Amino acid sequence: MRNLITDVPDVLVGNAQDARAAPGVTVALFEHSTVASVATLGGAPGSRAVSLLEPEMTRGLIDAVVLSGGSLFGLDAAGGTTSVLASQKRGALFGGITLPVAVQAILFDLINGGEKDWIREPMTHKPPYWDLGRDAALAAAADFALGTVGAGFGATTVNLKGGLGSASARTPQGFTVGALAAVNAVGAATIGDGPQFWAGAYERGSEFGGLGWPARVPAEALAMRFKGQPAPATATTIALVATDAKLSKAECKRLAIMANDGLARALRPVHAPNDGDTVFAAATGQAGPGGEPPVLTELGAAAADCLARAVARGVYEAQALPYKSALPDWQQRHGRK
Amino acid sequence: MRNLITDVPDVLVGNAQDARAAPGVTVALFEHSTVASVATLGGAPGSRAVSLLEPEMTRGLIDAVVLSGGSLFGLDAAGGTTSVLASQKRGALFGGITLPVAVQAILFDLINGGEKDWIREPMTHKPPYWDLGRDAALAAAADFALGTVGAGFGATTVNLKGGLGSASARTPQGFTVGALAAVNAVGAATIGDGPQFWAGAYERGSEFGGLGWPARVPAEALAMRFKGQPAPATATTIALVATDAKLSKAECKRLAIMANDGLARALRPVHAPNDGDTVFAAATGQAGPGGEPPVLTELGAAAADCLARAVARGVYEAQALPYKSALPDWQQRHGRK
Repeated sequence: MRNLITDVPDVLVGNAQDARAAPGVTVALFEHSTVASVATLGGAPGSRAVSLLEPEMTRGLIDAVVLSGGSLFGLDAAGGTTSVLASQKRGALFGGITLPVAVQAILFDLINGGEKDWIREPMTHKPPYWDLGRDAALAAAADFALGTVGAGFGATTVNLKGGLGSASARTPQGFTVGALAAVNAVGAATIGDGPQFWAGAYERGSEFGGLGWPARVPAEALAMRFKGQPAPATATTIALVATDAKLSKAECKRLAIMANDGLARALRPVHAPNDGDTVFAAATGQAGPGGEPPVLTELGAAAADCLARAVARGVYEAQALPYKSALPDWQQRHGRK
Repeated sequence: MRNLITDVPDVLVGNAQDARAAPGVTVALFEHSTVASVATLGGAPGSRAVSLLEPEMTRGLIDAVVLSGGSLFGLDAAGGTTSVLASQKRGALFGGITLPVAVQAILFDLINGGEKDWIREPMTHKPPYWDLGRDAALAAAADFALGTVGAGFGATTVNLKGGLGSASARTPQGFTVGALAAVNAVGAATIGDGPQFWAGAYERGSEFGGLGWPARVPAEALAMRFKGQPAPATATTIALVATDAKLSKAECKRLAIMANDGLARALRPVHAPNDGDTVFAAATGQAGPGGEPPVLTELGAAAADCLARAVARGVYEAQALPYKSALPDWQQRHGRK
């Protein structure tokens, strides 16, 4: 086990980023078209090709999930991924044309310090996301980096640098579950300004420091603190959970809803009006049926745990960006691992 | 009155197309950010940035609606539109950055005969939609062409060339309502192979031939006929209705749902599993409150009528594409106007 979402067979992940502009894209690519759905619980989402993931819609097979920075500008990224998928003949045939499906969610990282020339001069510079979506898809592999990479490159939380996280687990019934998250939370992943994580209870080994939970949470750690006080600010944590169980699209929707509980446990606050928190759920199906309520309950609970751990790992593994006003990273604050 | 959606103050429309590849994009641009929502009743939709249009989401203001061909490849178009909007400083300020909102729906026209080199060689040719989305936004004006233009360029119905249509009306309460539709229906807009339209009852003047309804519909016209029998095929009619009434996002959602009834009356069948039929609704607000149920009922009924008329006009105004297997247009079949 790599403790990555790629422990789920058929799932590959690639990152691409542009260090000057500080945007990034992460692509999860499925070796075979895969059943998926989505649950969008943040109040300000940005997404591409997600309507088809609703249970009442016909198509339910996707070839890639694209997570990216760039807010609405970033929604070009799935286009680059789509061209890579087309070149690899992925997707389903329609009238002699292979039509791959890349679904996408974005996060808001446009004020992270990088040089955004396509915002300053929109008619002379194209946004970089289409190319980054292509490059991230071309980089897809079983091993991939965490922290300040891909869609986590420009990400932040209210008090620390955010980043890309991932985790995996095996359920008692023998299914593999994995999570991938780009953590750009409106709130905090740590308990106040201490080194411990809200997700501490679910940690495996020392994957994010091994510091557990405090016996008593100090009052100042419970004080409300989030980005954009008093002015509004946008944030967003976007994620994918995957399993090798065989699920219908409606069951994937249930899995995505339960997985959002992992965001609730790992981030405070989350799912806010200016968040676009979106969780995709995909089921590759090799390990057999998982849709019966008790089995799906186990999968959903495991997905929530994995997603909570992925969030903490995203923050734990992040490195601060080299800009003057950049937030510190967990390692700077709480000691190198 | 132009009998176009641009009779609604603040709404401009631009078209762009590529005659060699035969894709096209239509952009409706709002002079001021405008409340909007969407109702997606087709079973195979492709859309961009539509999650934020749901009533439970925070943002409700949009700057453009992009309708395009190209299926999922076409979803790059809103990116080009977004850059134009950014250059014009449209949108809302977030952290010092103007963030315009362009929402999009696509239709499937990839087998219309044009030269799609980005599908044949995806790693050496980029799809043309980003540039077309930019060009259509730059072309936005109060006057625009109908028929084989923009998102209607490659569109077809089961028996005739489809196209871009528009219509407008004034309600008894004095509101203006308009509709814009790219008609790529899985079914037919005409009653069988005759010259009359299912939308005939709602026609104003001779906007689509003035032929009314047949006194009795022949049995063969009621026979089930739609694209893709027996093989599956994708289609999709995408549309926008707009009004100068002041509506909330939830009220725009209701308007979009009622407007879909216009598709039901103008196309048979419609809203099918391989359709991605999507109707946006926008309310520019200058003419005062329109959300009280009796007023909104009137607006919804007027929007449905306008959309039915826009569908018929899209087919009536279309010109067949110059490819060997191209479907004939209404004028070829039933005499020049």
